[in-house]
Amino acid sequence: MKKYKTKDFHINIGKLQSGPTNSITDVHGVKVGHTTISEGDIQTGVTAVLPHSGNLFQEKVIGSIHTINGFGKTAGSIQLEELGTIETPIILTNTLAVGAGLQGAIDYTLANNPSIGRTTGTVNAIVCECNDMIINDIRTSSVTKEHVLQAIDSATPEFEEGNIGAGTGMVCFGLKGGIGSSSRMVNLGERSFTVGVMVLTNFGKMEHLTIAGKHVGPVVKHLHPQKHQEDVRDKGSIIILVATDLPVNERQLKRVLKRTAVGLSKTGSYIGHGSGDIVLGFTTAHKILHESSTFFSSQETVQDYALDPVFEATADATEEAILNSLLSSENTKGRNNQTVYSLRSFINDIL
Amino acid sequence: MKKYKTKDFHINIGKLQSGPTNSITDVHGVKVGHTTISEGDIQTGVTAVLPHSGNLFQEKVIGSIHTINGFGKTAGSIQLEELGTIETPIILTNTLAVGAGLQGAIDYTLANNPSIGRTTGTVNAIVCECNDMIINDIRTSSVTKEHVLQAIDSATPEFEEGNIGAGTGMVCFGLKGGIGSSSRMVNLGERSFTVGVMVLTNFGKMEHLTIAGKHVGPVVKHLHPQKHQEDVRDKGSIIILVATDLPVNERQLKRVLKRTAVGLSKTGSYIGHGSGDIVLGFTTAHKILHESSTFFSSQETVQDYALDPVFEATADATEEAILNSLLSSENTKGRNNQTVYSLRSFINDIL
Amino acid sequence: MKKYKTKDFHINIGKLQSGPTNSITDVHGVKVGHTTISEGDIQTGVTAVLPHSGNLFQEKVIGSIHTINGFGKTAGSIQLEELGTIETPIILTNTLAVGAGLQGAIDYTLANNPSIGRTTGTVNAIVCECNDMIINDIRTSSVTKEHVLQAIDSATPEFEEGNIGAGTGMVCFGLKGGIGSSSRMVNLGERSFTVGVMVLTNFGKMEHLTIAGKHVGPVVKHLHPQKHQEDVRDKGSIIILVATDLPVNERQLKRVLKRTAVGLSKTGSYIGHGSGDIVLGFTTAHKILHESSTFFSSQETVQDYALDPVFEATADATEEAILNSLLSSENTKGRNNQTVYSLRSFINDIL
Amino acid sequence: MKKYKTKDFHINIGKLQSGPTNSITDVHGVKVGHTTISEGDIQTGVTAVLPHSGNLFQEKVIGSIHTINGFGKTAGSIQLEELGTIETPIILTNTLAVGAGLQGAIDYTLANNPSIGRTTGTVNAIVCECNDMIINDIRTSSVTKEHVLQAIDSATPEFEEGNIGAGTGMVCFGLKGGIGSSSRMVNLGERSFTVGVMVLTNFGKMEHLTIAGKHVGPVVKHLHPQKHQEDVRDKGSIIILVATDLPVNERQLKRVLKRTAVGLSKTGSYIGHGSGDIVLGFTTAHKILHESSTFFSSQETVQDYALDPVFEATADATEEAILNSLLSSENTKGRNNQTVYSLRSFINDIL
Repeated sequence: MKKYKTKDFHINIGKLQSGPTNSITDVHGVKVGHTTISEGDIQTGVTAVLPHSGNLFQEKVIGSIHTINGFGKTAGSIQLEELGTIETPIILTNTLAVGAGLQGAIDYTLANNPSIGRTTGTVNAIVCECNDMIINDIRTSSVTKEHVLQAIDSATPEFEEGNIGAGTGMVCFGLKGGIGSSSRMVNLGERSFTVGVMVLTNFGKMEHLTIAGKHVGPVVKHLHPQKHQEDVRDKGSIIILVATDLPVNERQLKRVLKRTAVGLSKTGSYIGHGSGDIVLGFTTAHKILHESSTFFSSQETVQDYALDPVFEATADATEEAILNSLLSSENTKGRNNQTVYSLRSFINDIL
Repeated sequence: MKKYKTKDFHINIGKLQSGPTNSITDVHGVKVGHTTISEGDIQTGVTAVLPHSGNLFQEKVIGSIHTINGFGKTAGSIQLEELGTIETPIILTNTLAVGAGLQGAIDYTLANNPSIGRTTGTVNAIVCECNDMIINDIRTSSVTKEHVLQAIDSATPEFEEGNIGAGTGMVCFGLKGGIGSSSRMVNLGERSFTVGVMVLTNFGKMEHLTIAGKHVGPVVKHLHPQKHQEDVRDKGSIIILVATDLPVNERQLKRVLKRTAVGLSKTGSYIGHGSGDIVLGFTTAHKILHESSTFFSSQETVQDYALDPVFEATADATEEAILNSLLSSENTKGRNNQTVYSLRSFINDIL
Repeated sequence: MKKYKTKDFHINIGKLQSGPTNSITDVHGVKVGHTTISEGDIQTGVTAVLPHSGNLFQEKVIGSIHTINGFGKTAGSIQLEELGTIETPIILTNTLAVGAGLQGAIDYTLANNPSIGRTTGTVNAIVCECNDMIINDIRTSSVTKEHVLQAIDSATPEFEEGNIGAGTGMVCFGLKGGIGSSSRMVNLGERSFTVGVMVLTNFGKMEHLTIAGKHVGPVVKHLHPQKHQEDVRDKGSIIILVATDLPVNERQLKRVLKRTAVGLSKTGSYIGHGSGDIVLGFTTAHKILHESSTFFSSQETVQDYALDPVFEATADATEEAILNSLLSSENTKGRNNQTVYSLRSFINDIL
Repeated sequence: MKKYKTKDFHINIGKLQSGPTNSITDVHGVKVGHTTISEGDIQTGVTAVLPHSGNLFQEKVIGSIHTINGFGKTAGSIQLEELGTIETPIILTNTLAVGAGLQGAIDYTLANNPSIGRTTGTVNAIVCECNDMIINDIRTSSVTKEHVLQAIDSATPEFEEGNIGAGTGMVCFGLKGGIGSSSRMVNLGERSFTVGVMVLTNFGKMEHLTIAGKHVGPVVKHLHPQKHQEDVRDKGSIIILVATDLPVNERQLKRVLKRTAVGLSKTGSYIGHGSGDIVLGFTTAHKILHESSTFFSSQETVQDYALDPVFEATADATEEAILNSLLSSENTKGRNNQTVYSLRSFINDIL
C-alpha cells in the first residue's frame, strides 16, 4: 500500500493525535476507490469517496461546500447549498472529465435506485476536478463513465495516496502532487470524534512551499534539475474533502470546512487567482432518509462553542494531507516526456 | 415559426414596450438553437443560447447567476460567481443530461480553441436543467453530446418556443411548459437598451396559475379532462436566462437577475421546495478578452440609481416569457401515453 | 385597538386560514411593543418584537436573515448569519436611529444579564430600519435609547398596526404605510403550526399598487388629491419579520424567509434599487441555551419536503401584512405640513 | 510616534517591498485618527480610518466586506455588499460601542451634507468592533459619539500603533494587542500600486502564536509570569482593513480581501469559534459620485489574472500588521488591576 506520511520524515503538524490510519477513512464507514489511467501522454484518473457503504441516495449524509477560490468547475454545488445533503459518491477527476464524472455517478445511482425518474425525482451528483494538463493530454477525453464506476466499485477503507486515481497527473508546488490524506482525533467530554481530510493537490508555486513553518521552497527550487514553468497561470486547484463522525448540522459543517484554509495557507498557498480551491465535507453522524413516513425527525448536534478543537483538527489534518500528497507521490513522466519530481527527491536536503 | 405571445390573446404584462421580436434575441447578437428528441417515451432535448456569434472563450461576456431556490443541478456556477464571466454557449437540457451537456459544450469550445489544455487552461461550461420525467423516460440517457453540438450549430436569432428543444418534455402548472421568451425596452437618457428573457418552464401547481393578476388556476383545474398528479413533489424547476445590452458589471447584473423572482411570483409560483429556480444572465455590452496584452481595461457601467426601469423590464419580461412558454406549447403525448395539455386548450374559457 | 385587516374589506389573500388574531403574535409567546413619537415635524418611533417572554440572551431562538435588496442599514446580521440565533428583542426604527436602537437593546440585555462583559462575552442586538424622512425630520435624532426601552417594556401579544411605533412616519406606494401583520395556519399530519408576519412598510410607487391581483395603482393615482413626489429615489424599504412555531433549523428558516418575496411582489413591488428589503425570522420551537453543561443537544426539525405549505403561508401572510399596514394607517400630517393619505381614503372607489 | 515594526526585530514577512511608512497610509489619501480612553478600569477607545480627505458621502469609494468568521457585530455590511461603496469614515471601537460609533459617523456625515434627509436619502455608516472586556469595563458605555467625532477629526497620514485608539484594551494571543499596520508594493507593468493593511487584534491563544513560521507560543507561555485565562471563550476578534490604490471593482476587491486569511493563519490563528474575524477594504482608484448628471460612467479595472502579486501583498501585509500590533503595544494595566504584557517583553528570548 503506497503512501508516506509526514511522520515518516519526523515532521509533526500540530499537537492533536491522528486516527489509526491517519487518513479520511478513520471516519468509520468512509471508503475511497481509485481508477488510474497512465499511458504515455495520458496521466489522469478518477477517485471516488463514499461516505458510507449503504445506499447513499436513500440514506443521505449532511454535507456542505465552501469555496475558498472559485476558479473551478465542481458540479452539484447548488443543491448541496440549498438542501445540505450529499446523495452520491463524491467523484474527483480532471477538469474536462466532469461530464463523465456526472454520468458515472448518475448511472451508479440509477442502477441502485429504480425509483429515480419513475416515482421519485432525480439525483444530484457531486463531481470535483483539478486540471492535470501539464503532464496529461487533457484534450483527449480519456476518462469515461466506466472509469468512474470502476473507482466507485473498488472503494475500500484502505487506499493509496500520491500519484494515483484523480491524482495521477497533478502538480503541486511544481512537484508531483495528487491524493493525500490525514486525520485528527478530538475529545468532547467522554466521547471521541474523528476529522478526516483527503486532498487532491494541484496548486502552488515552488518558491512558496513551506513545511511545518519552514519555508523550504527556495531551497527546492535551487536543487531542482529543471527550469520551471510553474508560474504559468490558470492551472492550479485543490479539492479538499472533510469527513467527520461529529454530529454537526450543515451550518456548523460549513464553519468546519472554512478552517481548511488555515492548513492550506501554512503550506505556502496564497490562494492563487487561477486555483479552484474547493472544500466539501460531510458528517456520518446522521442519515437523512430520502423517503420518510414522518414530517419530523430529531437529530443530535454539537454546541457551537465546542467547535474550537474541531477547527484545529481540520486545519492540521488539511496541512498534513497536502504534505502527504507530496510525500506519497513518485517522480512521474507524462505528456511531452516531461517529468515532474517527487518531494521525496529533495526531502533529505531540506529538513 | 411556432410561437404565441400574450398579446395574441390580448393579455398585457406591464407598461413597457417589447422589442421587435419580443424575445431574448432582441438583444443584438444573441442566438438560440434547439435539438428536439421526440419519439414515444422519449420527449426531451437541448436548447443552446449563444451570447454572441464570435469565439465566446476568447471574448467572454460578463455574466452572473442567482439561485432563487437551489433544488437544481446547474453546472458551472462556482466559476461564474468568482470571475463574473461566461465563456461557452449556455446549454439547457434534462436533469440527467447535464454530463452530456458539459461534454458537448466542452467539445465545441475545444474544437474552436486549440490552445485549451496546451498553452492556456481549461473551460467552464454552463449547463442548466429541468426534470422532464413526467412525460420523458429520463432514465434512458437519450441526450448525447452530439445533440448538444447540433443545438449550438443550429442557433439563429429566430427560434421557436413551447415544446421544443429542452422544453420538449416540460410541464408547468400541470400544463405543457417549455421554452418561452419575451423582451422589454428601457430608455436611459437618449440611449435605448433591451432586456431579453428566455425561460425553460417546468414548475408550479395548476391551482396557482395566475395570468396578469387573474387567478385562473382553479378554473383550468375544473375544466381539465384529467385527474392530476401535479402535486407529486421533487419534479419542478425553472431556468430563467436574462440577456441585455445595458453596460452593467457583475454586481449590477446580479441585482437585475434577482428581479426575475417578481415576474415568477406573479404567475402563481410559491417557489416550491422541489423546484430548482435558477437565473443566469449576461450583458453583451463588453467583451472580456481571454488573453490580453495589458494589465488594465476600462469599461462603461450604468449608475445603480438608473436601474429601476431595468428591474421593471426584467420582472415583466420574465412574467410574460413564462406565459409565452405555456401559450406556445402544444398538447404533448409522452411516456406511458400520458398527454399534457396546452394552456391554449383552455384559454378562451378563462380570459 | 386600532387595526384593519383585508377581510374587513372582503379582500382574500390565498386559501389558507389565518390564526385567531391574524397577526405575528398568533405564534405563541411573541410580543410587540410600540413607542410613537409624533409632534409636528417629528413623526417617527420604535417597534420592538420579542420572540418570547423569557431571557432572550440566556434562551436564544433560532433565527435567520435574508436580504431581498440590501440598500439598508439593519445591524446584527453578520452574527445572525454565522450562528443562526437571535438573542435580543428585534428593534425597528428610523434609519438614522439604528445607533439608538443598538444602545437600547444592549442596555436592556445588560440589565437582565450581569454576566455580560464579566464572565461571558457580549451581545448581538438586531436593529432594523426604514427611512421616514418624507414626513419625519430624520436629521434631528429624536429617537433615544429610552424610547427603545419603552417599546420593549410595553410589548404585549396585542398590538396596534398602521402609523404607530416605527411605522409612524412611513410611506408605502405613496400612501401612509407603517406596521402591518397577518398570520396563516399550516397542518402537518395531526399537528398545526402558525406562520406570523409583521412588516414595516415604506416602499413602492403608487402606480404599481396591486391588491389581490387587481392593479389599482393607476386608479388611486387618478383619485389622489396631490401631485406626487413618490418617484424620488433612495427613500424606500420594507422590513419583514417572520415568526413561526414550526421546528426548523436555520437553513430551513432561511428558505422560508425567501418566500416573503412572493408576497411582496404581488403587492406591486419591483424591489426598487433604493429599497432596503430585509427579512428576518425566528422559530420559537427551540430554545438555544447561552450556557450549557453539555456538549450536545438534540432538536426536532421538519423534513424539507413538508415545507411547501409553509412557503405558501409565508408568502400569503406577507402579502396581507403589507396590505394591512396600508389599511390600518390613518391620514398623517408631518414635516412641512405634508399629509400622506391612507389607502382607506380610496378603498371604496377601487374595489 | 510610537510604533514598532517586525523589521526592527529583523523579522521578515514575505519577499515584497513595503511602502515608505509600512502602513495603510502608504495608500495616498488615507488617514487614521485615534481617541484613547484610558483611566483605571476603562481601557478602550475609537480609531477612525478615512479613505480620502474629501467628502466621502459625495465621493464614495468602492468597498467590499468579507467575513472570515461572523461572531461579530460590524454594522453597515448589508448595504456595502449590495452597492459596493463606502461613504463614511470606517469606525473601530469596542463591541458595546457600535451604537455610539454609528451616531458619531452619522453626525459627522450629516454635518457635512445638509442634503441628507432633505433632498437625498440617508447614509450607511461602517462601524467595526472587538470585545475588550478583559481589561476594559465594557459595561460602562464609556465611548460616546464625541469620542468618535474626535477620532475622525484627528485623522492624519501618520498614526500610532499598539495599545491606542480602539486598540487600547485589546488582547491578542494572550498578549497586548491593538492597532497594527503594514504595507506592500506591487508592480504591474510600469505602474506601481500599494496594498495597505491596518488591523485591530484581539484574538488567539498564546500557545498558537507563530512568528514568521516559528511556533513561539509555547515558549512565550513558559516565560509568561501569569497563569492565563486566555482560553475563556467568546472574547476574540480581529478587524482587518485593506486599502489599495489599485483599480479593482467590488468583485475583485472581495477576492483581495479573502487573502487576508492567509496572513492571519500564519500568525497561529485557527479562526476560533468566538472570534469575529471581519475584513473590509476599499480602493482609492475611483470616486463614485453620490449625485451624477449622467447615467453612465467608465472605470479602469485591473485584469483578474494580474491579481496574484496583489494577493501575496495582502497576505504578507496582514501577517506583518498583526505582528506589528503586538510589537507596538506596551504592557497595559486595566480592569481589576490585570496587566496584559507586551510581546516585546519576551521578544529577545524567542527569536
